[in-house]
Amino acid sequence: MIHPTAVINDKAKLGSGVSIGAFTIVHENVVIGDNTVIGSHCELGIPSSLSDGSPLIIGKSSIIRSHSVFYAGSAFGDNLATGHRVTVRERTEAGESFQIGTLGDIQGHCKIGNFVKFHSNVHIGQHSTIGDYVWIFPYVVLTNDPHPPSNVMQGVTLENFVVIATMSIVLPGVTVKEGALVGAHSSVNRDVAPDTVVAGAPAKFICDTKEVKLKDGSGESAYPWRRHFHRGYPEAAVAAWVAEFASAKVV
Amino acid sequence: MIHPTAVINDKAKLGSGVSIGAFTIVHENVVIGDNTVIGSHCELGIPSSLSDGSPLIIGKSSIIRSHSVFYAGSAFGDNLATGHRVTVRERTEAGESFQIGTLGDIQGHCKIGNFVKFHSNVHIGQHSTIGDYVWIFPYVVLTNDPHPPSNVMQGVTLENFVVIATMSIVLPGVTVKEGALVGAHSSVNRDVAPDTVVAGAPAKFICDTKEVKLKDGSGESAYPWRRHFHRGYPEAAVAAWVAEFASAKVV
Amino acid sequence: MIHPTAVINDKAKLGSGVSIGAFTIVHENVVIGDNTVIGSHCELGIPSSLSDGSPLIIGKSSIIRSHSVFYAGSAFGDNLATGHRVTVRERTEAGESFQIGTLGDIQGHCKIGNFVKFHSNVHIGQHSTIGDYVWIFPYVVLTNDPHPPSNVMQGVTLENFVVIATMSIVLPGVTVKEGALVGAHSSVNRDVAPDTVVAGAPAKFICDTKEVKLKDGSGESAYPWRRHFHRGYPEAAVAAWVAEFASAKVV
Repeated sequence: MIHPTAVINDKAKLGSGVSIGAFTIVHENVVIGDNTVIGSHCELGIPSSLSDGSPLIIGKSSIIRSHSVFYAGSAFGDNLATGHRVTVRERTEAGESFQIGTLGDIQGHCKIGNFVKFHSNVHIGQHSTIGDYVWIFPYVVLTNDPHPPSNVMQGVTLENFVVIATMSIVLPGVTVKEGALVGAHSSVNRDVAPDTVVAGAPAKFICDTKEVKLKDGSGESAYPWRRHFHRGYPEAAVAAWVAEFASAKVV
Repeated sequence: MIHPTAVINDKAKLGSGVSIGAFTIVHENVVIGDNTVIGSHCELGIPSSLSDGSPLIIGKSSIIRSHSVFYAGSAFGDNLATGHRVTVRERTEAGESFQIGTLGDIQGHCKIGNFVKFHSNVHIGQHSTIGDYVWIFPYVVLTNDPHPPSNVMQGVTLENFVVIATMSIVLPGVTVKEGALVGAHSSVNRDVAPDTVVAGAPAKFICDTKEVKLKDGSGESAYPWRRHFHRGYPEAAVAAWVAEFASAKVV
Repeated sequence: MIHPTAVINDKAKLGSGVSIGAFTIVHENVVIGDNTVIGSHCELGIPSSLSDGSPLIIGKSSIIRSHSVFYAGSAFGDNLATGHRVTVRERTEAGESFQIGTLGDIQGHCKIGNFVKFHSNVHIGQHSTIGDYVWIFPYVVLTNDPHPPSNVMQGVTLENFVVIATMSIVLPGVTVKEGALVGAHSSVNRDVAPDTVVAGAPAKFICDTKEVKLKDGSGESAYPWRRHFHRGYPEAAVAAWVAEFASAKVV
């Protein structure tokens, strides 16, 4: 399951059932959980002074697709899943079931919760803080410098269940509050209230998220999305969501 | 012409004169046409349940540049040409002379016509339908989910001769009609009429495409672009285009 | 220091102390300065008719990170530093201490000054001209075709000390003058006056750069950034900048 062309440092700690693709490099300071699959042409655990000597830790049952690069000094829970050509720098801490789409670029020094999903080509600036069940769509950038270039770093905060749609940026120091939706092609320069939709550049209040209707003929609200979208989440979470909205449906 | 470091499955079907670069992987379920050149560090025919058992088919006289990734279950006509680090997922069907720029990300489950050209870093969401002679410029995203995340998929349609300029997005379910031009940095949220220019976020009607003048001192219209831009197209097509506009020029 | 899996052409000219990572390819027409470090999975000096027979020249003490691709026919001064997956096409000429972030895509036929820094995922169209001490932030595109596709190429010019913030585009033929700042998520369709801030799509005048205050409690101006931001610049330049603003501070 380790391809003969892979270059694996003897001191790397690989769990049982780990698979490693052709032409992949695993450095010394790496810990990979059981049954994790690493694709081809990857480089894991690149040494760096910014890692403070910490290893790269990848949880169990994960999949890292080809041409991806992870530095030493970051830690991921179980069931990490990445697309191709992902870059993850030092001091990234993520919970379980984190999904990073192809071309994702995580600059490190950031905290990411559980069940967070990034679609392709998402850029996460340093000092970002991301809650649980957050979705970020393609070509979104979370920034951090209010007057670039400078030494002032004001990270972005995305609370639980936030959704940021395609080609949007969130400006430094902004907090997008729980359940809010940033529409596509927007630039968010101030905090966004919970469960509201903002859009535009600069982004302005559009409506409450519950006013967005599902375009499936049901007439139901599209948000909170956990009302109708369950693919890839654990059974227990889905059961709780179903219960949460069961009474609402009766009304 | 097959580099000794390449890892080629015995069952892959390579035409005559096929060249494969160093450190490239070709899986079992791949058919490559005669005289096609595959660069270094690629991975072709990644197995996937979404391929429904179909192979990856690459036409004749194609070139796939380095670090590109193609899944099984897609088919391309002759003269495919890609830049570096292209990603193509399952169920992509493209005609002849398709060009994909560096970093292109095609999510699969899409149909693409003949002589379509993508510049760098184009993202094609699932269920997109693209006609012939379409041009897409850098950092354009074709979306598909009207209220992400959800299970509702409304693909984008780009008809023949459509041009989408840099850093624009087309929202779910939108049709951009034949010969229309979407200006740079736009967000298109409704159908675009044939041979018109739209721009802005949300995109609004600017003018008919024929009113855009070539900045070459000729005073001619810049659109339809086939009036003046012929590089890389087959002689027969160019001859037809020349004939199409010959009478117009007399007037 | 040359990994045994690297494929190095015998005619490539490597300086003393050059290090080359695993699975990297170095073609014939390459000159690499002393003490330069090339990462894994790179391909340097790709032959091309557009290189006019010129080599790829990389200066001393440079670092090119993994999965990067450079064509023959470009030249870089000392202390080049790139992120991962950088693409550089033919006829790119850059000065010393050029920094290209991860996923940078330089289309060639361009001139870049000294101490220029690109953050991640910057796209530089052909015929761009960039001065000294310029900063470009993620997902910025410099365009060149006023009515794509066409054969008219009008490159962008960025003068010394220009800053282009995240997710902005500069339209063909535009000059951004010395010390100007383009705000995030902007589309610049006309020349920008020196030491001014523009933002929006299309970008409009916001204020003089000196009116932007540092968010560090000092009450100082954030621009010119050389007043306060010195990281990574040579001592002599920093000393000159300190002297430049010493008198201003007294006033």
